[in-house]
Amino acid sequence: MQNEKQVPVMQMWVDETHHGVARHGIKVTKSLFSGKSEFQTVDVLDTPGFGKVLLNDGLFMVSDRDEFIYHDMIAHVAMYTHPNPKNVLVIGGGDGGTAREVLRHPGVEECVMVEIDEMVVNACKEHIPVTSVVFDHPKLDLKIEDAVKYVAETNKKFDVILVDSTDPIGPATPLFGPEFYQNLYNCLNEDGIVVSQGESPFFEQETQISLLKIISEIFPKLGVLNFSNLTYPGGLWSFTFASKKYSPLKDFQEDRYKKDNLKFKYYNKEIHKACFALPQFMRDALGEYLKGI
Amino acid sequence: MQNEKQVPVMQMWVDETHHGVARHGIKVTKSLFSGKSEFQTVDVLDTPGFGKVLLNDGLFMVSDRDEFIYHDMIAHVAMYTHPNPKNVLVIGGGDGGTAREVLRHPGVEECVMVEIDEMVVNACKEHIPVTSVVFDHPKLDLKIEDAVKYVAETNKKFDVILVDSTDPIGPATPLFGPEFYQNLYNCLNEDGIVVSQGESPFFEQETQISLLKIISEIFPKLGVLNFSNLTYPGGLWSFTFASKKYSPLKDFQEDRYKKDNLKFKYYNKEIHKACFALPQFMRDALGEYLKGI
Repeated sequence: MQNEKQVPVMQMWVDETHHGVARHGIKVTKSLFSGKSEFQTVDVLDTPGFGKVLLNDGLFMVSDRDEFIYHDMIAHVAMYTHPNPKNVLVIGGGDGGTAREVLRHPGVEECVMVEIDEMVVNACKEHIPVTSVVFDHPKLDLKIEDAVKYVAETNKKFDVILVDSTDPIGPATPLFGPEFYQNLYNCLNEDGIVVSQGESPFFEQETQISLLKIISEIFPKLGVLNFSNLTYPGGLWSFTFASKKYSPLKDFQEDRYKKDNLKFKYYNKEIHKACFALPQFMRDALGEYLKGI
Repeated sequence: MQNEKQVPVMQMWVDETHHGVARHGIKVTKSLFSGKSEFQTVDVLDTPGFGKVLLNDGLFMVSDRDEFIYHDMIAHVAMYTHPNPKNVLVIGGGDGGTAREVLRHPGVEECVMVEIDEMVVNACKEHIPVTSVVFDHPKLDLKIEDAVKYVAETNKKFDVILVDSTDPIGPATPLFGPEFYQNLYNCLNEDGIVVSQGESPFFEQETQISLLKIISEIFPKLGVLNFSNLTYPGGLWSFTFASKKYSPLKDFQEDRYKKDNLKFKYYNKEIHKACFALPQFMRDALGEYLKGI
């Protein structure tokens, strides 16, 4: 028998459960911030495997470890399809990562970012510098207001709009509706592009179908692009790509891509096109809404 | 105060933990089989979200829900790159799913399957018919023996070899070594192809590099193909594609693909090529070993 005292160590995990039948979790070192805004709960956790992790309403939003994937793919496919994107609108994206990637493109003159929840922005400013570094950028115009109202009222026109929203529960629900997409269409220049958070192909196919149906009735070109990350349920995740004129496959801006020579960790010119190749189960379910890509 | 008796319901989950910092889990209804063979533990669970699930040494191997993804991608990329695959060797793959997909190709004359652990085969025969249905196929030659020994000794030659192994711990360790790959090379016809379970790009990059280094010293053509499933850690998973002659991008057998007109749920002709487009972090880490694809 040993005389040594066994000190129990607290094992803290945060898990996200999907439809009650699957879950994925991250080991937690400690909570850095926990708040409740007018719109949602906001948590930032420190973790040994993923660095800082942001959760809204208990769902994983961003982690230091893999945020580059989501932010590369929401921004650069559109930015290297449009031949000359100068004015960009980011809706949501309160952590800052999407605007950060937009503003790496030297031709961008202004990035307007409309985030409804100041608590998310402030929590990220305090605890997640890897994405919130963008809030000091001189070309960023950050507005804390409801994007639904903003796109209904603004007179500005944009080349690219990126909808970096949470899921269609809580504050983001109207961002999955037809009025919103009609207003996005109206806010775009004649050759504009909208990329939107497009949910899980494995767990949220009905939401995908509903969103694609709405967008396909408004935009002449529509595709779905996939990517794989660690933060979202099932790993495989998607964006919708809606466009008035340009096709990501036919209009890839290879010259500018080469000239800019930006360093990415996920996106590259092969991924730019390959991300639109959908597994057959997605093509079977969503194919009727896809066009012109 | 209510008089009703609250009956607690057992909540049973099975989780797989990755390097102690992340985990993913599946809700369990009940255990259908639990055994310990000479090589590993073997469990079959019934689950509400994934149907039957097989675990070896506590790691998720196969689920009813998403087994089609892994089995499509290990088999059909190779089968539709080789112009006329008649003799196929499956190493491991004790659930039967890989051999099942091989034998959907009408031109195949024989599929030899060498699985070391009869307990896996028998557990799947009893509980996982969706994959084990193949064990009644007249063109299947199932051998319960050590594949390391088999490929060192056989005089047979194959067009395609599929290494459907567990991770490089336990019985599968020698399947990640240079002697084994030299023997695979020797067992292949002059224009043969080997596809092997290639581990997690997110969690096992060192294993990937080690395996690619070994294969690149033996085979003239080498690529990595990605796919996304629900059963393996992080969702994103890979196969290595080693070839003596044919390139999956240049030698895609589109005519036969169209003529066969097989119905797939994951694989299709776009995925056949797009799966070789690697995220930049993989290209940076593995690119020096890739060639001729």
